[in-house]
Amino acid sequence: MSTARDLVQALHDSDAVSASLGISIDSVEAGRVALRMPVADAMANGHGLVHGGYLFLLADTAFAYSCVSLGRPSVTRTADIAFLAPGRAGSELVARAEARTEAGRTTIVDVRVTQGDELLAEFRGHGTLVSR
Amino acid sequence: MSTARDLVQALHDSDAVSASLGISIDSVEAGRVALRMPVADAMANGHGLVHGGYLFLLADTAFAYSCVSLGRPSVTRTADIAFLAPGRAGSELVARAEARTEAGRTTIVDVRVTQGDELLAEFRGHGTLVSR
Amino acid sequence: MSTARDLVQALHDSDAVSASLGISIDSVEAGRVALRMPVADAMANGHGLVHGGYLFLLADTAFAYSCVSLGRPSVTRTADIAFLAPGRAGSELVARAEARTEAGRTTIVDVRVTQGDELLAEFRGHGTLVSR
Amino acid sequence: MSTARDLVQALHDSDAVSASLGISIDSVEAGRVALRMPVADAMANGHGLVHGGYLFLLADTAFAYSCVSLGRPSVTRTADIAFLAPGRAGSELVARAEARTEAGRTTIVDVRVTQGDELLAEFRGHGTLVSR
Repeated sequence: MSTARDLVQALHDSDAVSASLGISIDSVEAGRVALRMPVADAMANGHGLVHGGYLFLLADTAFAYSCVSLGRPSVTRTADIAFLAPGRAGSELVARAEARTEAGRTTIVDVRVTQGDELLAEFRGHGTLVSR
Repeated sequence: MSTARDLVQALHDSDAVSASLGISIDSVEAGRVALRMPVADAMANGHGLVHGGYLFLLADTAFAYSCVSLGRPSVTRTADIAFLAPGRAGSELVARAEARTEAGRTTIVDVRVTQGDELLAEFRGHGTLVSR
Repeated sequence: MSTARDLVQALHDSDAVSASLGISIDSVEAGRVALRMPVADAMANGHGLVHGGYLFLLADTAFAYSCVSLGRPSVTRTADIAFLAPGRAGSELVARAEARTEAGRTTIVDVRVTQGDELLAEFRGHGTLVSR
Repeated sequence: MSTARDLVQALHDSDAVSASLGISIDSVEAGRVALRMPVADAMANGHGLVHGGYLFLLADTAFAYSCVSLGRPSVTRTADIAFLAPGRAGSELVARAEARTEAGRTTIVDVRVTQGDELLAEFRGHGTLVSR
């Protein structure tokens, strides 16, 4: 039987988007996944602030990995995000996902995105189990 | 006095993220902005499906442009997105933003993301006016 | 074939919650339903401000009626609401629902809740078609 | 200095909506509040299913109480709810709120609504500190 770590590693090995953005796995337990992404210059605007879309993208990736770590591969059906502080160029972003609820085909996962000690965003995703 | 088009064009001219992703302006009226983005190979996974994070990023950009077109430059405070169909590599995405509500410092904007005739996602953003 | 009005009227006739709260139908077209609810004293706190839960309840009812008006009876799967101004005791609330998107089994409906000329809340509901 | 319990009790003593619906306090710690509400017949439709609006109302009340328990009285700015299973007449509902994030004037609180052992709804509220 595959461990949570094996399942997430296999997903990461085939994930072209994560490869292109340099997203790496920080830690994995069942339902809990932490990912790390460097902030490329092209992710920030003229004032050195990271586009919120990249925070969402990293959080949504952590959401998907967290579902897979539970053996529940899912697609995001709906998600919401609150932006609490701007990210800045030149430093890594970290997303920590924690599955909150498994109910039928639905999985709800909460993700915090941080930069250093600062909380940048709170994401909640609702996924639907992929049919197999 | 600047027109909606002038305001949005000025924002686009200084928007390094849009430049890096090839996001272009399709049309502008006050409160309504349509943007277009080619799907690069690096935006899709092994099955040729676009990462939802890029749909969010395009929608969030259209949200910001729509606020600016009203003379209400805003940062996204919260946003939610529903994914209705997957995007596919090799074809442009279009985001059509329409401001729905202006209430005090809050602006609510709805954005549809489409690919050809297909509706991929519905986004709603709540923005806070940038202090000046 | 039943008209939108007939479908909504039949739902209202069997809706014990609407009866108990005095919710009445203002207007119906396919996908668009307006409802009206008096503010009872028990809906407001000591300062005469209406509990946001009743704004949500009215909006969610308008959501369900709007789905039925399309011949798509649905249960609310997820909903979000933004509170823009407080409601006050002693005056009716009106909820105007407008279906935005029908995609497979999903229906997205937007609802504005007003009191007189003032916009109190913006609601978006995502429904799933009831199996028959 | 007031304890979390004192702060919440004082709010409850002046809360006419909670009194009218029979909402009682189950437990209080700083940031964590559990409330209980009986399901009146008037809260359910003809099939004995509780209107989702009452689940939201109970969750939103637990949200407000949780903010107060932290000494951060707040109004709900936005909230989202996912309905996972229907509530049924004749049995109490319980809402367990847990503050997740305090960032500037924003407080994010997650609330689970259950009936017996069953999870009915997951609510997330974003509050703004009341000016004093």
